[in-house]
Amino acid sequence: MTDTLSTVESVDAQRIRRDDRAHVFHSWSAQGQIDPLPIASASGSYFWDYEGKRYLDFSSQLVNVNIGYQHPKLVAAIQEQAGKLTTVAPSFANDARAEAARLIAELAPGDLDTVFFTNGGAEANENAIRMARLHTGRHKVLAAYRSYHGATAGAIALTGDPRRWPSEPGMSGVVRYWGPYPYRSAFHAESQQQECERALEHLRSTLAVEGPQTVAAIILETVVGTNGVLVPPDGYLRGVRELCDEFGIILIADEVMAGFGRCGEWFAVDHWNITPDLITFAKGVNSGYVPLGGVIISRAIAGTFQDRPFPGGLTYSGHPLACASAVASIGIFREEGIIEHARDLGANVIGPALADLARRHPSVGDVRGLGVMWAMELVRDRDTREPLVPFNAAGADAAPMGEFAAACKQRGLWPFTHFNRTHVVPPCTTSAEEVLAGIEILDTALDVADRYYTGG
Amino acid sequence: MTDTLSTVESVDAQRIRRDDRAHVFHSWSAQGQIDPLPIASASGSYFWDYEGKRYLDFSSQLVNVNIGYQHPKLVAAIQEQAGKLTTVAPSFANDARAEAARLIAELAPGDLDTVFFTNGGAEANENAIRMARLHTGRHKVLAAYRSYHGATAGAIALTGDPRRWPSEPGMSGVVRYWGPYPYRSAFHAESQQQECERALEHLRSTLAVEGPQTVAAIILETVVGTNGVLVPPDGYLRGVRELCDEFGIILIADEVMAGFGRCGEWFAVDHWNITPDLITFAKGVNSGYVPLGGVIISRAIAGTFQDRPFPGGLTYSGHPLACASAVASIGIFREEGIIEHARDLGANVIGPALADLARRHPSVGDVRGLGVMWAMELVRDRDTREPLVPFNAAGADAAPMGEFAAACKQRGLWPFTHFNRTHVVPPCTTSAEEVLAGIEILDTALDVADRYYTGG
Repeated sequence: MTDTLSTVESVDAQRIRRDDRAHVFHSWSAQGQIDPLPIASASGSYFWDYEGKRYLDFSSQLVNVNIGYQHPKLVAAIQEQAGKLTTVAPSFANDARAEAARLIAELAPGDLDTVFFTNGGAEANENAIRMARLHTGRHKVLAAYRSYHGATAGAIALTGDPRRWPSEPGMSGVVRYWGPYPYRSAFHAESQQQECERALEHLRSTLAVEGPQTVAAIILETVVGTNGVLVPPDGYLRGVRELCDEFGIILIADEVMAGFGRCGEWFAVDHWNITPDLITFAKGVNSGYVPLGGVIISRAIAGTFQDRPFPGGLTYSGHPLACASAVASIGIFREEGIIEHARDLGANVIGPALADLARRHPSVGDVRGLGVMWAMELVRDRDTREPLVPFNAAGADAAPMGEFAAACKQRGLWPFTHFNRTHVVPPCTTSAEEVLAGIEILDTALDVADRYYTGG
Repeated sequence: MTDTLSTVESVDAQRIRRDDRAHVFHSWSAQGQIDPLPIASASGSYFWDYEGKRYLDFSSQLVNVNIGYQHPKLVAAIQEQAGKLTTVAPSFANDARAEAARLIAELAPGDLDTVFFTNGGAEANENAIRMARLHTGRHKVLAAYRSYHGATAGAIALTGDPRRWPSEPGMSGVVRYWGPYPYRSAFHAESQQQECERALEHLRSTLAVEGPQTVAAIILETVVGTNGVLVPPDGYLRGVRELCDEFGIILIADEVMAGFGRCGEWFAVDHWNITPDLITFAKGVNSGYVPLGGVIISRAIAGTFQDRPFPGGLTYSGHPLACASAVASIGIFREEGIIEHARDLGANVIGPALADLARRHPSVGDVRGLGVMWAMELVRDRDTREPLVPFNAAGADAAPMGEFAAACKQRGLWPFTHFNRTHVVPPCTTSAEEVLAGIEILDTALDVADRYYTGG
């Protein structure tokens, strides 16, 4: 960039910052304590600020830009649909909506062949719960600790992390259970297999004391996202599926983050060949180019609403512009082999490279993931597994993670950090070279974390 | 259209119907009992099906296409932003988002100068309640019978119509009150002024028995939408504002339907010069071309979250594509004088023409509205005010309204009907000639309703 351009753009950046600070209310933030970076442009796996600084995005924004930024074919599809027909009410039929639904249903496992479209993941989970309750005639829902399902009253009640606390009491009928998390086992397990068995035993016991016949649904993130990239041990999801079958309980797989390539599969459940009764999606379905989410529904549950009205809806359900972008995105994923690429990146690039970091940095306590969904857990001591920062830390307590993130950003990498973890969640389209360049920056930044290491 | 074209398009329509019926799960419907009409295209106040039949849209889809269909400048703005930057996470600053927030804040009354963006109205109301509760430290919310606020767990709990019933029990803490409705007064009032006084007295009494110090917010639709275009008597909103001030209660004006031109004002509250503490919006802000909604926040409430994190959010909060379309739409509204046009249509075209229908059709029991937001209430008897169909009628009981709607559609008018009412809610940009042509069709269709008339 020339100096002249730089000056012009700095004026723009100043104006944006001014308007932003004066008029934009930001999510999950103390408004007086943030200084949001104005983003000028983006392409592929990178975005640029107004000073021309480039960031490799290891967060995919909020883990949604699976196809990368500004994919030309996806942009063109949106522009074309915009010129054709932007909006149609849910009660009509529409070509983009019908085609998106057909394509998603074809990708989904088993007999999940109907799609209820929403604007995002929270509404998808809200409506999945509604369907499960009305289908079963039961009220209770089992949801896991260490989970995030959205921030509307129902979705936040399902959520098993501190973001729920300020919204309590919320929707009634949510019962909490513990999911598998081998690195910090709630069950004192010492192997993946033991964690799997004990987590299933715990779930069965919880059902028993709750009364399984009172439980409408078990909801889980197929791979837990923001709360730690918790990959379920082999056998766990199969076991949950069997428990649900045994007691007539609906299994809801929240794949808002894990679906559409993130785990190297169309749906994360494909990795274990499981068919839930409902799958909720958003983010990766169209990489968030237009707000879109939805619920994919089993034939049995759709059947419940064959002659009985489904009591839910929203003005933009099946929005043509959003649906056209999903159609285009699925086409591009196929043409460019993006699912396969994501799977390969995980198995052959990210996994090995992070394992290498763990060998060289004592602060890396655990590495886990698949596809382009990975986490490194940073600790002060590998033996005690004391996290680099305490659970839900804020302010000074969270400083070490802030320093780590700053070290990444300073070197042109935008990291995803949460509690004591950094996630590696770049676009599915990121090249191996780009991923390795990003991991090299993590390598340097981990020196910051190592400085807090107190273990042997 | 030529026959050839017609044949080609029929094949398209068949494919769309087939995919739709096989894979699209429609809102608020028994899936086996609907036959959604495929829409091929739309322009201005009209849409076309695949047989080339044109419909004048007196529903604005779901009362959202305020600017009309496919406004060329709005389409161009979306296409331009799509080519520039579609998506950015809420934690960044972005030019489209910052400008949209500034423009909306400038339009909003009083010191409502910060905007929290959502994807639609339900999420806007959810977050408004969250803000009110945390700002006041109180839990209870007063919401009106005959209201609709959305279908997520919190929004549906606020909703005061039968759509809520299947989702109960939902979010805790909602207390119900009766709002003004002069034609069917809950207070046995015999004039607008008496209705106003008694409705306020009822609200004050309800607060007294609930304990006003336990009430976080009163939420109301400034002009009640789907539940009847209930225009509050002059003085009512002022009275509610004063009650809120007296007891430190937050006044939330849900303007998802009533705002952005629908009532001939930027915000419906402008008609009575009232400043709520929070305004929720969606629909008309960008006519639903891209999903968008939000909350406009008073300085005091924003101040609560200056040093304390606001515990809510969503991936697409402040979506650049959506925000760019809001910026463009506000510009077009100004350039083309759409607010003034909507106000004029109501006062000088729709109002007088509907009054004329009421003079000639005994089944028209009441006409009310402002701007491009009107309702005719159809009755079997003007003295008893017995509605043409019972409250919440379905199946055979609802047949008269079905026949009325069919008569409109057959003649090329797409009506908005709900219970025993037909609403006249065309785009704000509809010409006087188009409106009168539509009302001429209503005139003919009302003969159907008149046939059920049993009064004197």
